[in-house]
Amino acid sequence: MSTQPTTAADDIRSFDGLRAMYINCTLKLSPQSSHTQLLMDRSAAIMRTNGVEVDTIRAADHRIAPGVYPDMTEHGAEADDWPELFERVIAADILILGTPIWLGDKSSVCTRVIERLYAHGGDLNDHGQSRYYGRAGGCLITGNEDGIKHCAMSILYSLQHLGYTIPPQADAGWIGEAGPGPSYGDDGTVGLDNDFTNRNTTFMTWNLMHAARLLRDSGGFPAHGNQRPQWDAGARFDYPAPEHR
Amino acid sequence: MSTQPTTAADDIRSFDGLRAMYINCTLKLSPQSSHTQLLMDRSAAIMRTNGVEVDTIRAADHRIAPGVYPDMTEHGAEADDWPELFERVIAADILILGTPIWLGDKSSVCTRVIERLYAHGGDLNDHGQSRYYGRAGGCLITGNEDGIKHCAMSILYSLQHLGYTIPPQADAGWIGEAGPGPSYGDDGTVGLDNDFTNRNTTFMTWNLMHAARLLRDSGGFPAHGNQRPQWDAGARFDYPAPEHR
Amino acid sequence: MSTQPTTAADDIRSFDGLRAMYINCTLKLSPQSSHTQLLMDRSAAIMRTNGVEVDTIRAADHRIAPGVYPDMTEHGAEADDWPELFERVIAADILILGTPIWLGDKSSVCTRVIERLYAHGGDLNDHGQSRYYGRAGGCLITGNEDGIKHCAMSILYSLQHLGYTIPPQADAGWIGEAGPGPSYGDDGTVGLDNDFTNRNTTFMTWNLMHAARLLRDSGGFPAHGNQRPQWDAGARFDYPAPEHR
Amino acid sequence: MSTQPTTAADDIRSFDGLRAMYINCTLKLSPQSSHTQLLMDRSAAIMRTNGVEVDTIRAADHRIAPGVYPDMTEHGAEADDWPELFERVIAADILILGTPIWLGDKSSVCTRVIERLYAHGGDLNDHGQSRYYGRAGGCLITGNEDGIKHCAMSILYSLQHLGYTIPPQADAGWIGEAGPGPSYGDDGTVGLDNDFTNRNTTFMTWNLMHAARLLRDSGGFPAHGNQRPQWDAGARFDYPAPEHR
Repeated sequence: MSTQPTTAADDIRSFDGLRAMYINCTLKLSPQSSHTQLLMDRSAAIMRTNGVEVDTIRAADHRIAPGVYPDMTEHGAEADDWPELFERVIAADILILGTPIWLGDKSSVCTRVIERLYAHGGDLNDHGQSRYYGRAGGCLITGNEDGIKHCAMSILYSLQHLGYTIPPQADAGWIGEAGPGPSYGDDGTVGLDNDFTNRNTTFMTWNLMHAARLLRDSGGFPAHGNQRPQWDAGARFDYPAPEHR
Repeated sequence: MSTQPTTAADDIRSFDGLRAMYINCTLKLSPQSSHTQLLMDRSAAIMRTNGVEVDTIRAADHRIAPGVYPDMTEHGAEADDWPELFERVIAADILILGTPIWLGDKSSVCTRVIERLYAHGGDLNDHGQSRYYGRAGGCLITGNEDGIKHCAMSILYSLQHLGYTIPPQADAGWIGEAGPGPSYGDDGTVGLDNDFTNRNTTFMTWNLMHAARLLRDSGGFPAHGNQRPQWDAGARFDYPAPEHR
Repeated sequence: MSTQPTTAADDIRSFDGLRAMYINCTLKLSPQSSHTQLLMDRSAAIMRTNGVEVDTIRAADHRIAPGVYPDMTEHGAEADDWPELFERVIAADILILGTPIWLGDKSSVCTRVIERLYAHGGDLNDHGQSRYYGRAGGCLITGNEDGIKHCAMSILYSLQHLGYTIPPQADAGWIGEAGPGPSYGDDGTVGLDNDFTNRNTTFMTWNLMHAARLLRDSGGFPAHGNQRPQWDAGARFDYPAPEHR
Repeated sequence: MSTQPTTAADDIRSFDGLRAMYINCTLKLSPQSSHTQLLMDRSAAIMRTNGVEVDTIRAADHRIAPGVYPDMTEHGAEADDWPELFERVIAADILILGTPIWLGDKSSVCTRVIERLYAHGGDLNDHGQSRYYGRAGGCLITGNEDGIKHCAMSILYSLQHLGYTIPPQADAGWIGEAGPGPSYGDDGTVGLDNDFTNRNTTFMTWNLMHAARLLRDSGGFPAHGNQRPQWDAGARFDYPAPEHR
């Protein structure tokens, strides 16, 4: 629990029992150090302090086959680690994708992970909702010069489209001034004291925990008007028929 | 309330007392007909049927001055309708931006509205959170050929960055096959029976209502770890200090 | 002409007779100072030194009506300065759009200008090509924290789609470190010595001049395989008929 | 040469001696059929008919390691086919990236290819320009519902930023109406007769050939104001020093 002074208005619930998955989409293989990991670790520290169980994947260390099916070995791939990674992703209430920026865009590893999440877009939960419902998603981004918001637009769009809830201010990151330059954490100092990055990372982390807590306490995202089997069976949930003219 | 058959698992709460604001960002002045409005009307019908009070703005009919301040008449603009429009926006629990697509992008009117929403990005509520907290946001997009997802990425990003919660599947829209062609609702038929558009619009609408209900019943978005005055006063909410090396 | 030392390989042609149009899409009305203008002025200085005639528009000072027709007064707008602005745009061999960044995106004024350029997308030149053919386009972007590349993606895409040629490295700009902070030129110093910004702006400027010179000397962009009237009349320019199976 | 009727104004040059590289960034391994390949083949047919030598890579069939260095085996990768693929890329005057669309974005394979192209962003030619100068770039995109323009924005941005010239209308593609549905070429018919797709693909192909011809005949992109070694040595090419205030 937090040890800093807070006001009476503060709404600190227990986050025990929640799980969070951080997927680092750096292009670097372990054990090379990843700037993005440094920022993800600071976010994860908040979660751990507050009782959230944290799992982490460095995607580039795994063989994640290209494709949009749950198991690509059934479609010609020699190997595919995604099926077991997906079990860890779907076990989590919170998903945070972390990515570096190259040419203003998220990494190919991040795009790969999103494609494989999309492979399960048709999976349903017991209510007939997308299986990703009832979970909260966010992103953390580092680069040396430009593109936090552009990467976040793409990542957060994909997560909400798949069924994640995006809480307020769910994107954070660090970049330096225009042009090549040092990266987050270089020399043990670069960016580490950036107030904007630190505040946004903190707010994002808490908002993901709050949203996951709310969703868990509600028994998932409310189930009415968003269930595919019912829609396919003809339910229209008050959506008006077109007035053909 | 819904008259379609639903299962016992269905979670139909009362939405009485909630308000929704639909801002149509078409480039057309009234009374010209707007394709985007047709789709927005179908979404709004669901809300009205379920007790949500609906307000609608066609932004192009108003003089919304360029700039990033709350009232641009204080910065040289001859006129500015935004201050009174903002009062209606902030009175709503739900905000839906509707836009046409031009060259694959949202309209200039939509961009203008987002800039003016951003002008209030520093406004705080009683808890010290962004004033937009505790609200749910989504978007509806129509075009004749391409760009729903790209427009949605940008709009939803902005809304969450400002403090709105984005529920699952909060984007919907209609486009036709590649190339110029008829627009939504042309001839009283085009796109109106598109199952994908209808389902996504329905799911989006319900998910916005559900999220707004959850947030209202929780007394807003939980307040801890996301309050600017406390951050500025030195609270760090368990965010670890950097390990300078 | 350049007074710096150059190598024998240098290819300095005469740029006499070329015209360039800089459109500043700042949200600020004159005479407020625009950070983006400072950078545009430095680019324009190179052009003027080398014989290019430079014209400049600050779009926000003009009443540019929303819409996608050449003259919106024919579609209900009270006033529309675009028709006369367009004559100046189309008189130029080079078009540079300058924009500030808000929430990671180009300004609403920039989007408006692009919409109105698009209104002439069907205009043809004497060869039956898009009227924008034979011209070169680029962009200059300033913000205080993030988004040069994202804005450039959108602007350059639109320009090439309309018929402009995009020479190498046609985007340049300045942003500061993540988070709010000073803007380009603040205090008479911020960003002005950024080597990356200065180099990219210089390269962009020269590449636009070179491309415009090449196109003018070629009598415009070569005319074969890209003429709409011929396509509509049935010419297929060696495009193979589908092999229906 | 073209056998269709053309006007006297037509500008048909010889394209003998030019080379084009098509990189198909489908997620599918050979020999699975790729919808994107069908469209690329039609473009390539025009080139071959006119004397351009065409090379094709299906990127997913190769082991292209993640990273931003020319040879990732020097940075921990077990294998890396990129160094030999790059030799084929740089041997071509024209580069066309083809990609499917997933969640509105280009494929992870396409992002990977761009990252590896970027690895050579610092390579210089004999004039001190980026090694990609003097080449023309474009893209071809297929999906079943949405995103041609968004993918094109990203791809064309990257190509021009690296040094490629983007000729007019260098993006083309096919998508169907909003929602899941058939893909390009399904049943041997879908999309194959789409006039917009066919026209844009044709215009793009010719414009790439024209631009490559112009650049080759000019001895590459003109060399002045765009050479890094000279900039680094202090040449400023008429870029004005800042007026510090």
